[in-house]
Amino acid sequence: MDVTATTADLASAAADAARLLPTRAPVPAGLVLRADRHGVEVAGSGREHAIRLTRPATVHADGAVLVPAAPLAGTLRGLDDPRVRLVVEGSRLAVRTATARFALPLLDLAAHPGVPPLPPRVGSVPARALTAALTPVAGAASKDDALPVFTGVRVHGTTSRLELMATDRYRMAFASLPWARTAELDVLAPAAVLAEASKHPDRDAEVSVHADADRVALSWSGGSVSTALLAAPFPDDRARKLLEAVIDSTVLVEADVLAGAVRRAVPYAGPHGSVTIQVDDGEVRVRGSDPRAGESEESVKATIDGNRVTKTFQARYLADALRAFSGRRVELRIQDGLRSTVLTSPAGEDGVELTYLVVPLRTQV
Amino acid sequence: MDVTATTADLASAAADAARLLPTRAPVPAGLVLRADRHGVEVAGSGREHAIRLTRPATVHADGAVLVPAAPLAGTLRGLDDPRVRLVVEGSRLAVRTATARFALPLLDLAAHPGVPPLPPRVGSVPARALTAALTPVAGAASKDDALPVFTGVRVHGTTSRLELMATDRYRMAFASLPWARTAELDVLAPAAVLAEASKHPDRDAEVSVHADADRVALSWSGGSVSTALLAAPFPDDRARKLLEAVIDSTVLVEADVLAGAVRRAVPYAGPHGSVTIQVDDGEVRVRGSDPRAGESEESVKATIDGNRVTKTFQARYLADALRAFSGRRVELRIQDGLRSTVLTSPAGEDGVELTYLVVPLRTQV
Repeated sequence: MDVTATTADLASAAADAARLLPTRAPVPAGLVLRADRHGVEVAGSGREHAIRLTRPATVHADGAVLVPAAPLAGTLRGLDDPRVRLVVEGSRLAVRTATARFALPLLDLAAHPGVPPLPPRVGSVPARALTAALTPVAGAASKDDALPVFTGVRVHGTTSRLELMATDRYRMAFASLPWARTAELDVLAPAAVLAEASKHPDRDAEVSVHADADRVALSWSGGSVSTALLAAPFPDDRARKLLEAVIDSTVLVEADVLAGAVRRAVPYAGPHGSVTIQVDDGEVRVRGSDPRAGESEESVKATIDGNRVTKTFQARYLADALRAFSGRRVELRIQDGLRSTVLTSPAGEDGVELTYLVVPLRTQV
Repeated sequence: MDVTATTADLASAAADAARLLPTRAPVPAGLVLRADRHGVEVAGSGREHAIRLTRPATVHADGAVLVPAAPLAGTLRGLDDPRVRLVVEGSRLAVRTATARFALPLLDLAAHPGVPPLPPRVGSVPARALTAALTPVAGAASKDDALPVFTGVRVHGTTSRLELMATDRYRMAFASLPWARTAELDVLAPAAVLAEASKHPDRDAEVSVHADADRVALSWSGGSVSTALLAAPFPDDRARKLLEAVIDSTVLVEADVLAGAVRRAVPYAGPHGSVTIQVDDGEVRVRGSDPRAGESEESVKATIDGNRVTKTFQARYLADALRAFSGRRVELRIQDGLRSTVLTSPAGEDGVELTYLVVPLRTQV
């Protein structure tokens, strides 16, 4: 193998691929580099995830090698030279610039398990809309691996819409976006890796969705990421029932303005990290109270429809929910008692419809 | 007390003061706010450090209060409003904007130990030069409180130069700069707080140095920071002896170019984090070798005078030393055996002369 390529191209591919591989394996994680007439492909696979990224390159000699991921990514990231040459020299892959040579040992490519092929294609979506929908939904999933079902995004394709749903039991996010369906799709995928994968393609690219009984994948011109499905039954019916709100009061407000007031109440959020939202005439009041820090109250202009109610929330859950509607007006549909507050907003130009539920806290009387 | 001031002014003062106070005290750290015809003063003191910062303000009513530091700093930092009002309302200090009120409890000002007065003034230096000298010297001090002497900066005023010295036993930095002396100065001061304090005044300000047998302080128009001295004898004679180098080889090189090569060798620095510098004709070669990552070699153009020698260093110590000479040509004076390598550079416009010593590693044969 002998190729010359743009350093930034290769560096981003190696970094993205290395990040997806397990870091604490007994042997160093390896990346497969393959040069052919299409350019150079950087590929890697761990127990769950797999990634392929193709970058343009001037190929002097075809070939494939397996090299340790971390030093390859670290070296490419640190180079100031705009172009770099990767060439096999004996038992080493040399990363060469005019003044430097970095020699990575060639690992045993024959012993590598290989990068699994993509499952069948089931439909496609624009990259920009997919990210806009996946980012907030994946953010509502749990980071705690102890309960795998809550670390997943439920991905369901209806005839015309792709539906995404996730919950950690304290909040839930549901998004739907237009898609072109070619086959059935109904899976529970790891939230974090799917959200990360959706950011790899160009914003204007079309992303294909692939799935079978074991894996789900996203692919685009120049790359793909696939991952093993979570083998847990998502509480579909209960989740969908939560979306049927019985509204006590509706608040229409600028999401960023309310988010700013919530952020400023955080020093006063007390031992439970809670803030109170009080619905009043033409405004909502954001209040905090802490035995040591003192009290806070901030008014935010809003259009109110319904009863004057007061709800208490975990400040960070409410902040996460509002961030999902950043730059837009958001509607808060407040329900009675301890039923969730539902945040929604009209679909944007990308056709993404987002609904975010936050469970209020039991208030001290 | 009742004042109106620029939010950014007050926010930076409260943040700087809060950062200097102990965070894990049994009671919340307090800041004293004092309004008079000079404006508003934000002051605080812990067991070791004390700070006073004056900011311009429109004073509607004089007065002084003690409030918890963290929520005051957090609230001011989060405000979007350009102006803010601080006014005593009953048992609270209200931080007010057009739409919000944050009410901090008034703590018992009478029980506050007070902010100690400044020790006598012993001389003065320009802020810019002081920071340029203190930042690299303080960076060579240890962060490990177990051996207090190595966390200090030795500050010594001769008739015309202010001398700063610190070592953690593996490297040593020595800087001197012109100063206007008015009295004796010979102290060991905590490195981190002194370096931080030197960044508070405007770059063009003149900074006064104050000291007595217990404390050292920096003051400038609008503020001061003082701190308790370290009660440990600095190994002066040994340190100064290290500066008397017997040169084996001299390398003149662009500090940033050599630093880049050292940084790129880090993935290959092996279990000891070491890089090797080999002096050759018209260049130095930076080499790394690691059983898993492979080998690296990079050439850096240099002017060489003396023998061809090879030295191995801790990569991060060498990187720290080179960073201190960023933007300049640095001279490496390499000594025989395990004697330190001495880095120097001609004094800049600010008159700061800097010498940095790095102890080489014993190399495997």
